[in-house]
Amino acid sequence: MVSLDDIREAHDRIRPHIRYTPVFTSRAIDELLGAKVTFKFESLQRGGSFKIRGALNAVLSLTDAAAELGVATHSSGNHGAALAIAAAIRGIPAYIVVPSNAPRVKRAAIEGYGGIVTECAPNVPAREAALDEVVRQTGAHFVPPYDDARIVAGQGTATVELLEQVPDIEQLWVPVGGGGLASGAAIAVRGIDPDVDVIAAEPSRADDAFRSLANGRIEPMRNPATIADGLRTPLGQINFDILSSHRVTVELASESAILAATRLILERMKLVVEPSGAVPLAALMETPPSRRAPRIGVIVSGGNVDLESLLYALKNAG
Amino acid sequence: MVSLDDIREAHDRIRPHIRYTPVFTSRAIDELLGAKVTFKFESLQRGGSFKIRGALNAVLSLTDAAAELGVATHSSGNHGAALAIAAAIRGIPAYIVVPSNAPRVKRAAIEGYGGIVTECAPNVPAREAALDEVVRQTGAHFVPPYDDARIVAGQGTATVELLEQVPDIEQLWVPVGGGGLASGAAIAVRGIDPDVDVIAAEPSRADDAFRSLANGRIEPMRNPATIADGLRTPLGQINFDILSSHRVTVELASESAILAATRLILERMKLVVEPSGAVPLAALMETPPSRRAPRIGVIVSGGNVDLESLLYALKNAG
Repeated sequence: MVSLDDIREAHDRIRPHIRYTPVFTSRAIDELLGAKVTFKFESLQRGGSFKIRGALNAVLSLTDAAAELGVATHSSGNHGAALAIAAAIRGIPAYIVVPSNAPRVKRAAIEGYGGIVTECAPNVPAREAALDEVVRQTGAHFVPPYDDARIVAGQGTATVELLEQVPDIEQLWVPVGGGGLASGAAIAVRGIDPDVDVIAAEPSRADDAFRSLANGRIEPMRNPATIADGLRTPLGQINFDILSSHRVTVELASESAILAATRLILERMKLVVEPSGAVPLAALMETPPSRRAPRIGVIVSGGNVDLESLLYALKNAG
Repeated sequence: MVSLDDIREAHDRIRPHIRYTPVFTSRAIDELLGAKVTFKFESLQRGGSFKIRGALNAVLSLTDAAAELGVATHSSGNHGAALAIAAAIRGIPAYIVVPSNAPRVKRAAIEGYGGIVTECAPNVPAREAALDEVVRQTGAHFVPPYDDARIVAGQGTATVELLEQVPDIEQLWVPVGGGGLASGAAIAVRGIDPDVDVIAAEPSRADDAFRSLANGRIEPMRNPATIADGLRTPLGQINFDILSSHRVTVELASESAILAATRLILERMKLVVEPSGAVPLAALMETPPSRRAPRIGVIVSGGNVDLESLLYALKNAG
C-alpha cells in the first residue's frame, strides 16, 4: 500500500519546493478546550493548502517519458492549484478540469499558477467525460486528487513535520474529505509514534467517512451541503483501506461549529483559514472533553477562501 | 533619549513573555513590487499587535512601590489590550479609559485580558478628564501609549528581531501613528545597521508625521478620516524628536491602497491584518519603483480587526 518509507522518500523529493509550515498555539483556544492544542498551518503552504505535497510528489515521481506531455486532473479547487504549481516546477503543462460552480478565487489561483482550465458541468459524469477528453487530446498523465499512493505519501509529509515540531501529542486531528491527508497522517503516525490516536474530522453534512468506517465498506456521499467545500468529495478506495486498517476514528462537526471554529482561528489566531481547515477544531469543540487528550496536534488544511463568501457566512451565523 | 542598549535591556526583560514573531514572504507580492519583501507579523504577537512589547517593558520596569496600585492608560485599542496583558503578567490591576466609539472587538479584548474599562466620550478633553479621575481614585501609574521612553525601547525590540531574521535588508518600512514603533525602529536600525533606510508609512488622510517631519515641528492631526484606525493618533513629542534626528522619511498611502494591501495580505499570505498593519505595503505599492530597495523588511503591526467592518470596507472598495 503506502509505507512510512514512501512518505520519507516523498519528503526528500518535495522538500526543496515546499514550505516547512509553522505551528501556532492560542491561549484562548487552549482554555476553551482544556487542552494544549498545536495547530500546523498548511494554509501557509505554497498554493495555500497541503495539496502541493501530494501533487508535487506525484509529478516529481514520473519518468521523463510519462511527464513529457503534461499532467491532468479534475478539481474544484486546491488540488488543481497544487498540480498547476507542481507542473510549473517540473516545466510541463497542467490541464485542470474545473466545475462551473467552483469558487472564483480557486479557479483564478489555478490560472495564476499557469494551469490550463477546462470548464465542465458540476456533476461526476460531466467531469469524467471532460477529463477523458482532455487526456485523449493532450496525452497528459492523470494525477488523481487523493485515491493514489503517490498522493497519500506526499500528504503524509505534513504529519511527519508536525511530529517533529510537537513530538509529545497524544492525538492528531485532521480533516477528512477524499482522505488523502488523513490516510497519509495515519501511516505516518503508526510508523513514527503508534500510541498517538488519529482522529479524522468530517462535517456532519458530508459524513461518508464516518458511515464508511462504521459499516466496513465505502458508503456513498449523499448531498454534501456543507460550507466546508473541500470536504464534499467522497472518500477514495485506497484512502478507505488505509483508514480502516490504521485505527482511525471519525468525529463529526456541525455547520455552526465549523463557522465558529473558522471565526475563532481568524479572530484569535489571526490566520485566514477555509472552513474545511477549521473542521478539526469544530469537531474538537463538539466532542465530549473525555475524548480530548491533554496534548493535541491539528493540521489546518488550507486557507483558500473567497473572503466575501466567508464573511457573509460568518455574519449570517451571528 | 533612548539608546540601542535600552532596547536590548527591554528585550531581555520582556522576552520570556512575548512571542518571537515569524516572518513570511509572498511570491505574488515580490513580483508585484519587483523586490524581495519580508514581512514580520506582529499580528501573531500576544494580544494581536506589537503593543505588548512597550507596555510590558514599562510595567516590568516599575518598582514594586510604583506598580502596587496598578497601571492606567487611555486607548481605543491595542495599547489598552497590551497594558491589560502586561498588568496581568505582573499581577496588578490595569485601568483602561476607552472612547465610546472604539471597535467592539478591541474593547472585548481589553476586558478579556482582565482590564478594567472606563468609557468616555470620544474626544481628547473627555479622555483626559476620565484618565485623571481614574488615576486619582486608584493611585494607578499612568503608562502612555507611545510618548514615553520605556514604550519606545520596548517597541524597538520588534526591529531587533527583524534584523536578526533578515540581516540583509536595505529598507525597513513600518507604520507610523503616535510613533512608538517607528521611533523604536529608527533607534534599533541606526544602532545595528546604520545603512538601512527607515521609512515610516502613514495614511494620506492622517499625515501629521509627514507634515511634522517636513516642517521640522509637530503639526496637528487634522480630521484623520482613515480606515487605519490605529494610525489616527497624533505623533508624540519624543517620537517626533527621534524620527527627526534619525533620518526617517515618511511615505503616504491612499485609502484605496490600504484596502488593496489588506486584501493582498489576507488573500495571498493568508494572514489577518488590520488596515493599519497593511499601510507599509500600501505605501510600497504607491511609491515609485526607484524608491523601493531590492530587499525590504516590513513590520505588520497588528491583526485586531472587526471582521464585519473589514468585510464591509473591502466590499465597498470593490
